[in-house]
Amino acid sequence: MIYFASDNNSGVHPQIMQALQDANNANTGSYGDDQWTMNMEAAFRDVFGPDTRAYGVFLGTAANVLGLKCILAPHEGIICAESAHINTDECGAMESVGRKMYLIPENSGKIDLADVQKVLTQFCNGVHNVTPKVLSITQSTEYGVLYSIDEVREISAFCRANGLYLHMDGARITNAAAALGVDLRAATRDAGVDILTFGGTKNGMMFGEAVVIFNPALGLDFPFYRKQGMQLGSKMRFLSAQFCTYLKDNLWRENALHANAMTTRLAAEIGKMPGLRITQPVNVNSVFLRIPQAALDKLAQKYKFSMWDLEPDSASPAVNGPEIRIMTSFNTTPEQVDQLAADIRASLA
Amino acid sequence: MIYFASDNNSGVHPQIMQALQDANNANTGSYGDDQWTMNMEAAFRDVFGPDTRAYGVFLGTAANVLGLKCILAPHEGIICAESAHINTDECGAMESVGRKMYLIPENSGKIDLADVQKVLTQFCNGVHNVTPKVLSITQSTEYGVLYSIDEVREISAFCRANGLYLHMDGARITNAAAALGVDLRAATRDAGVDILTFGGTKNGMMFGEAVVIFNPALGLDFPFYRKQGMQLGSKMRFLSAQFCTYLKDNLWRENALHANAMTTRLAAEIGKMPGLRITQPVNVNSVFLRIPQAALDKLAQKYKFSMWDLEPDSASPAVNGPEIRIMTSFNTTPEQVDQLAADIRASLA
Amino acid sequence: MIYFASDNNSGVHPQIMQALQDANNANTGSYGDDQWTMNMEAAFRDVFGPDTRAYGVFLGTAANVLGLKCILAPHEGIICAESAHINTDECGAMESVGRKMYLIPENSGKIDLADVQKVLTQFCNGVHNVTPKVLSITQSTEYGVLYSIDEVREISAFCRANGLYLHMDGARITNAAAALGVDLRAATRDAGVDILTFGGTKNGMMFGEAVVIFNPALGLDFPFYRKQGMQLGSKMRFLSAQFCTYLKDNLWRENALHANAMTTRLAAEIGKMPGLRITQPVNVNSVFLRIPQAALDKLAQKYKFSMWDLEPDSASPAVNGPEIRIMTSFNTTPEQVDQLAADIRASLA
Amino acid sequence: MIYFASDNNSGVHPQIMQALQDANNANTGSYGDDQWTMNMEAAFRDVFGPDTRAYGVFLGTAANVLGLKCILAPHEGIICAESAHINTDECGAMESVGRKMYLIPENSGKIDLADVQKVLTQFCNGVHNVTPKVLSITQSTEYGVLYSIDEVREISAFCRANGLYLHMDGARITNAAAALGVDLRAATRDAGVDILTFGGTKNGMMFGEAVVIFNPALGLDFPFYRKQGMQLGSKMRFLSAQFCTYLKDNLWRENALHANAMTTRLAAEIGKMPGLRITQPVNVNSVFLRIPQAALDKLAQKYKFSMWDLEPDSASPAVNGPEIRIMTSFNTTPEQVDQLAADIRASLA
Repeated sequence: MIYFASDNNSGVHPQIMQALQDANNANTGSYGDDQWTMNMEAAFRDVFGPDTRAYGVFLGTAANVLGLKCILAPHEGIICAESAHINTDECGAMESVGRKMYLIPENSGKIDLADVQKVLTQFCNGVHNVTPKVLSITQSTEYGVLYSIDEVREISAFCRANGLYLHMDGARITNAAAALGVDLRAATRDAGVDILTFGGTKNGMMFGEAVVIFNPALGLDFPFYRKQGMQLGSKMRFLSAQFCTYLKDNLWRENALHANAMTTRLAAEIGKMPGLRITQPVNVNSVFLRIPQAALDKLAQKYKFSMWDLEPDSASPAVNGPEIRIMTSFNTTPEQVDQLAADIRASLA
Repeated sequence: MIYFASDNNSGVHPQIMQALQDANNANTGSYGDDQWTMNMEAAFRDVFGPDTRAYGVFLGTAANVLGLKCILAPHEGIICAESAHINTDECGAMESVGRKMYLIPENSGKIDLADVQKVLTQFCNGVHNVTPKVLSITQSTEYGVLYSIDEVREISAFCRANGLYLHMDGARITNAAAALGVDLRAATRDAGVDILTFGGTKNGMMFGEAVVIFNPALGLDFPFYRKQGMQLGSKMRFLSAQFCTYLKDNLWRENALHANAMTTRLAAEIGKMPGLRITQPVNVNSVFLRIPQAALDKLAQKYKFSMWDLEPDSASPAVNGPEIRIMTSFNTTPEQVDQLAADIRASLA
Repeated sequence: MIYFASDNNSGVHPQIMQALQDANNANTGSYGDDQWTMNMEAAFRDVFGPDTRAYGVFLGTAANVLGLKCILAPHEGIICAESAHINTDECGAMESVGRKMYLIPENSGKIDLADVQKVLTQFCNGVHNVTPKVLSITQSTEYGVLYSIDEVREISAFCRANGLYLHMDGARITNAAAALGVDLRAATRDAGVDILTFGGTKNGMMFGEAVVIFNPALGLDFPFYRKQGMQLGSKMRFLSAQFCTYLKDNLWRENALHANAMTTRLAAEIGKMPGLRITQPVNVNSVFLRIPQAALDKLAQKYKFSMWDLEPDSASPAVNGPEIRIMTSFNTTPEQVDQLAADIRASLA
Repeated sequence: MIYFASDNNSGVHPQIMQALQDANNANTGSYGDDQWTMNMEAAFRDVFGPDTRAYGVFLGTAANVLGLKCILAPHEGIICAESAHINTDECGAMESVGRKMYLIPENSGKIDLADVQKVLTQFCNGVHNVTPKVLSITQSTEYGVLYSIDEVREISAFCRANGLYLHMDGARITNAAAALGVDLRAATRDAGVDILTFGGTKNGMMFGEAVVIFNPALGLDFPFYRKQGMQLGSKMRFLSAQFCTYLKDNLWRENALHANAMTTRLAAEIGKMPGLRITQPVNVNSVFLRIPQAALDKLAQKYKFSMWDLEPDSASPAVNGPEIRIMTSFNTTPEQVDQLAADIRASLA
């Protein structure tokens, strides 16, 4: 099978694998008391600014959940899009730590500040309500769509004016920054983000995400939340070493640009095919499309895609098969893309 | 000030107060080991059927949250209307015990099974999703509107067919049963409810709600959840004694019929007034209406209402002032209602 | 049966019952927005000092658990005696809100600062340990024994020197203050307590405990913890009104002195009886004693005691029957005590 | 610095590193939907019996906490030694998921069933107590001491007779099995263990522990607990592949035997040195000893040890310096051990 279901299907970039090998050269302190972790922290400071605090964890869910838990009292809540990964795909991890989400509508995963305002207006009834305290956005969104830097700035300005913190779920922030043509700091901190989930696993690391805190007043005791949240590995150097390589010489950007380019290549090919409908803007490394069931059945013998919506779309009866997500990653090859495009064309014949 | 904001503004019915006096006649066992609690349990069995289990708690929030927590694993969730009290007004108590709610649209607080089906269809992705496992409906709804018995039966049948339990938030189930002209068992258990929050405080008790379990497979260890959930009072007899009186000789119905009648009387008076718009069907003991701000300002010097929606309603620019809720209770008098109607009329002049 | 198992077996003092009647004279605001609650807050300020914040809850467990949760981060913990009620008798309520207890040995329920120091010394290993942050003591203890005011002051001084807050579980602080001959403020705030669980139910109220916060930096958002913790009653006035009467004219002291005196009377009688051994100092309103099983069997036909330790005490083979607790309350009569003493004497014959 | 503080200081065994390389040869399913994870599950079944269920997680804390959470209701608790890692070193992770521990004394980390019985006898008071439901033991203990197979069997028989499950924290079960000369199944399942934390990281893996469930009635929904508990990695194959190699051809035993042998070698050398006192039996891969502060200061310039107890031991004034733990691992060399022994000898001179 050829996997186009997720960038998680990919393996580990050779430079990252080499970094793991290199880190295996001596005994050292455990639980982050090691040179690699110090270097990682320095690397994050270099990239994001001198007072940046960055903490490695194993999973994106952990980065989201612990980062948000840490900056919220039990009676303070999160505003996020209905489609936010923290709401839909983390098996209630957020609720399991006792934090409430206020869900708002989304458009390709992007939120509208008018809907945020509605939450603020409705849930201001003192102790009867959870106090909205942080807005969480995803960049790029779960539908592979981008906020522009100006849009993030506008959101950030709204948050500051309304006493909200701004959290960014950056599981694919590298794909976003690469597509936007900016560096990581410009895409996050300089646009007004207070706290960031910085993804590594989807873009060439073996495992590893980081909670990156810019707001100096927030998350001062995050190390305790990480430990209690079961994310402080004993052989932490093997997580830290990956980030060192990932951030160095812009490996993150190289990988992300490649993944994005592979999707652009695919979308250019299949976008013109009759009988198939691309359902979301193609901004980074994923294409969402509806395809006839019969075509999908043929392709499914060779490929794995993400089954996004199996229900027919009543709004568009013409192409009304399942909606799937095709996603490329740092190690997708042009040949694989071209073959996939050809196979899709054949399936539609 | 005259309070029409909530049935919670009322005090205690004289018979209930007498029951508290009567229960104060001796020392007895604590934490529910007493004759009054035994009698209360028997009273619930008489009303709801012989294998009914009923447990008193102090608050409706506690009845909802502990009842639902008890029947759900941490990775199982609740489907409920966006307007459900457990979602909007309990300060995140449900999330604080680690349970997720899937919110669906509502119409006057009532849910549509098609929306329940959508949740079941969307969130069936194994460990990545919280498994929807219980549907919670409110009878009468937060907007004072009723499900018919047939509607509850249809919902129940859907739940059974889809592996869901049916929870009913019956903070005002007595108002509902009274309005529907059925007994409490017909309104709940016989209509297919598995577990019920049975309200007492709003309809003449000093304090006290009950978790009432009909499904014999559910909630077998609820007493532990109640104790850990800080709802097992030491002098439990004073809670139990109230329920004994409340259920005996249909005091619940007498009180509810009166509260409902007072609202009917009010709605009949003000429904015809120009410049004021009733926004929800009037089924039980509350009227929702939009009224010009100027009129409201006058009334606010004498009356307390519940401010429901301070935002203008763009759908109806003609009467576009704040939406308020006026609610009557067991001890509202016809004279109070008539005076209120007259004052509203004067305020609109 | 005649209940000497707990002061919870008693009912409600007539003045308290009258206060409940008096509070039932009008409709008023709900959830604490009422005159009685304002008066209660003022009464606590009068008793404990002008910047005291007091919040009524239904249960002592709730006062302990929510008070402690509110002043601790999830990674900060409580040092308390093994015998502390929060550890032994609250069905894991403290753990259910995610807070850890460090248990230390006790002597008649009283702690030794050397043991507190050991915890501080052992659990100072950064993120690997929960940081000890509050010391909780019980006054009077679960064994009915008192800390002197000087002892509380010494404990408080230790806490301040070591960065700990001092919490007092005062479920029976009124019995303690009465026995110590001091007022409530001297027994708590002036002795260095930061936050107090102030009990009412055991000493003549129907229901009601208070979280009383003296440290101005602590618990500023306690109202949210109370609401989320399901302890904010809708008809709050009926809780508040009880406290007003309880604190007024020293009803608390009158009741406590009486309960204590009844125990003194009993202990004086039975302390001399051969074949029976009092196992704890008698300071307030309880006697702990070991009594032969045969005698207990006879008494159990007429009386209810608290079965404290059914295991034989190897340290004292002479009187080696079960250990029981006999407890008196505000409404225990001298006649009841004298009859009980006589019956105990007869049972030993 | 040369690290003898923990087996966590070591790196990754070359065969494990090769397994990671080999697993990096293709795109595959994520979140455990891959061939390596299937192979790992089969490998555990081969080793522990055909109906064994094994689930990889990142950390030992996660294996302990999620395994225990999964088999306990919120009102059921754990009996364990005071020295248990889940109590002392996991930053309250167990409490953070709402589960209570009943702590009992220990001797070199081993529990005495008489103390377990005391908990059962004391905490049987219905809803007032958390019901003791699982006994957790650590093999080898936190002090590097072994239960014999017969001792485990006796504990297991006690558990079965008393309605307790038996959990084994096997962070170092491989060191134990190697020292006991038995296979892993004999050391765990066949000795009556219901659920096992199986450690990999300390004995040559990069990261990875497993929750291994033998009791067919327990933990049927563990996969949900793992996902919600933030332990289901997207590139799970890299965890699974390590276990395949670790279990194959007894790499686990080879590594453990070596680590144990290095400690035996060290203890043989230093055990005879005057001025130094070994404080615990030496059974596996750690030596606990008290050493004069002056000697320790010299050694600390070259070596890292685990500082176990900095307080003087009043029971033994003769050698009364700090207690340290020296631990060897799979990659400790005889030369390192001999050099350390020589340096210790010199430091004492």
